[in-house]
Amino acid sequence: MSKENTQVLFSKRPFGVFDPKETFTIVKNPIPTLADLKDGQLLVKAYYLSLDPAMRGWMNATRSYIRPVEINEIMRGQIVGEVVLSKNPKFKVGDKVQGFLGWQEYALTNGQDIEKITPPPGASLRDYVGIFGGTGKTAYFGLLDGKPKPGDTVVVSGAAGATGSTVGQIAKIKGARVIGIAGSEEKCNWLVNDLGFDIALNYRDPEFASKLAKATPQYIDIYFDNVGGDILDHCLKRIAKNGRIVLCGAISQYNEKQPKGPAFYTALITQRAKMEGFIIFDYAQKFPIAIKDMAKWLQEGKIKRKEYIIDGLENAPNGLLKLFNGYNTGKMLVKVNDENVKSKL
Amino acid sequence: MSKENTQVLFSKRPFGVFDPKETFTIVKNPIPTLADLKDGQLLVKAYYLSLDPAMRGWMNATRSYIRPVEINEIMRGQIVGEVVLSKNPKFKVGDKVQGFLGWQEYALTNGQDIEKITPPPGASLRDYVGIFGGTGKTAYFGLLDGKPKPGDTVVVSGAAGATGSTVGQIAKIKGARVIGIAGSEEKCNWLVNDLGFDIALNYRDPEFASKLAKATPQYIDIYFDNVGGDILDHCLKRIAKNGRIVLCGAISQYNEKQPKGPAFYTALITQRAKMEGFIIFDYAQKFPIAIKDMAKWLQEGKIKRKEYIIDGLENAPNGLLKLFNGYNTGKMLVKVNDENVKSKL
Repeated sequence: MSKENTQVLFSKRPFGVFDPKETFTIVKNPIPTLADLKDGQLLVKAYYLSLDPAMRGWMNATRSYIRPVEINEIMRGQIVGEVVLSKNPKFKVGDKVQGFLGWQEYALTNGQDIEKITPPPGASLRDYVGIFGGTGKTAYFGLLDGKPKPGDTVVVSGAAGATGSTVGQIAKIKGARVIGIAGSEEKCNWLVNDLGFDIALNYRDPEFASKLAKATPQYIDIYFDNVGGDILDHCLKRIAKNGRIVLCGAISQYNEKQPKGPAFYTALITQRAKMEGFIIFDYAQKFPIAIKDMAKWLQEGKIKRKEYIIDGLENAPNGLLKLFNGYNTGKMLVKVNDENVKSKL
Repeated sequence: MSKENTQVLFSKRPFGVFDPKETFTIVKNPIPTLADLKDGQLLVKAYYLSLDPAMRGWMNATRSYIRPVEINEIMRGQIVGEVVLSKNPKFKVGDKVQGFLGWQEYALTNGQDIEKITPPPGASLRDYVGIFGGTGKTAYFGLLDGKPKPGDTVVVSGAAGATGSTVGQIAKIKGARVIGIAGSEEKCNWLVNDLGFDIALNYRDPEFASKLAKATPQYIDIYFDNVGGDILDHCLKRIAKNGRIVLCGAISQYNEKQPKGPAFYTALITQRAKMEGFIIFDYAQKFPIAIKDMAKWLQEGKIKRKEYIIDGLENAPNGLLKLFNGYNTGKMLVKVNDENVKSKL
């Protein structure tokens, strides 16, 4: 086994598209030993790291819902892993945990930023950085706060991504008519054939706008926006009276030096519609309900998920860039350590 | 007296800035006589016509909250006037009325689109196309649906206009800290010295953005947007956590061939804020409450208003264009007929 702890530091604040090599620096440090731990500390070995579009925002030194990552700090990120050393009475070696321990193979923590997890039947550890993690909870709270009603037309962009694919499936569970927007025929086929979306539209299709109009004869009651840009404008043109746009993300704009606003936003006036942002941290009290519901739907086969796994923490910077290029279907994860290989420290 | 009925027809659908001469055609027709009236009809002589930014939207053949005005139709508009002929048992000659009777000196109606009015003490007939009309009700419902709390920071753009000046004064009544945005020093002085706004900022000032930031140390709880464009973006940058943007209008964009969306709208995500449109027609059940409150505030001197009166219906097309150039302070009206001159038909 490696005696080194690979860590990824945030090394340069990007402007526009980020260069993985410049933005991050990979360092190797010794793995802490039991003698290095203070009372109350424990060491977590990471198995999987979540890669998320939100990470691009964390790199910017602007006012946000969370402080920006500082230069030379370990890049922020959620992991699932296992306690391998402990001087904390609340955690014992072998406990499975999740938390924001950052882009590193081994993380020292006092335990306040992690929680123990026990995957329910049919779920895996990886689901804690997926369907039970940020993307799943984002889909759950973002959509359900919008109170979709049976028969509502729900449109979701970035539909083949981790959040979008979950949004569409929850909307189906709630009885909505669901239209997914994605960037390839292959993704669209997956949405309709495997996930049960009513319609999936490829935004690269030159006829996209007219197909969207045709697919929404009763207009759009809820548009769950993961992408921003032109697609947001097309959906604004189709928003229903008293419709709601759930602003989840704007992945098409995060790397733009001159982000573009939705020119057609005045449809919010004529249609008495709203456009609202949200951050899942505000729903922390309700996380257990979300996980319980999702676990049930997983078991019942009502929610399916796909993973796109990048092997090795060294490949995380390039992986993150791929996330912005429409490369992946489903949840992008980094396999940091093999969970099946037990190693003695 | 004139035996002719001046009417203004909508003659050409504009794209971008409208040309008053091309867009409208003034016609003269005979004034209907009692013999021309069918049973149930009445004739209203208009005294004042309201000119409103929304009129630009009514000229576009796009999906909206109201059907577009058709070519060669009398231009839509709200008037106050007096019944001068009647074969309708519900209305008698001399009744004062308001309604959407359009840009014409005399209007034939079956009475279903008008209501009788009796100005309360301290108010005038003109107030029914002002503070009790569309602009006043827009201010009242748009602001109060946002539930301003004492101590909230409320920012309003187009603050020296009919709606904006009312929004700011109602916000003061509700205990908010009020910042108005207007386009001249003279308007700003009026807002602070006469209307009691806490701060007024001139958006033409090169230091506007930094002054806005300085004026909103606790950020913006409610931004009432009448203008759109860059000012909307500046306010998005200062929106408070859980803040609310009331989308009332976008006067800076209505005449643009390529309207601009708010590039900084992603602040709605990071600040869990919302941006919401509304149309006062949806509040029709509550109009009497609004008028009662406004009448009380007028009498108590808590709400002041200014009128910008254009003389003669022939000048309405040019007047409407002025509305978009920041020309007026307060409510823009057209004096269609002199309410003090009684004429026998």
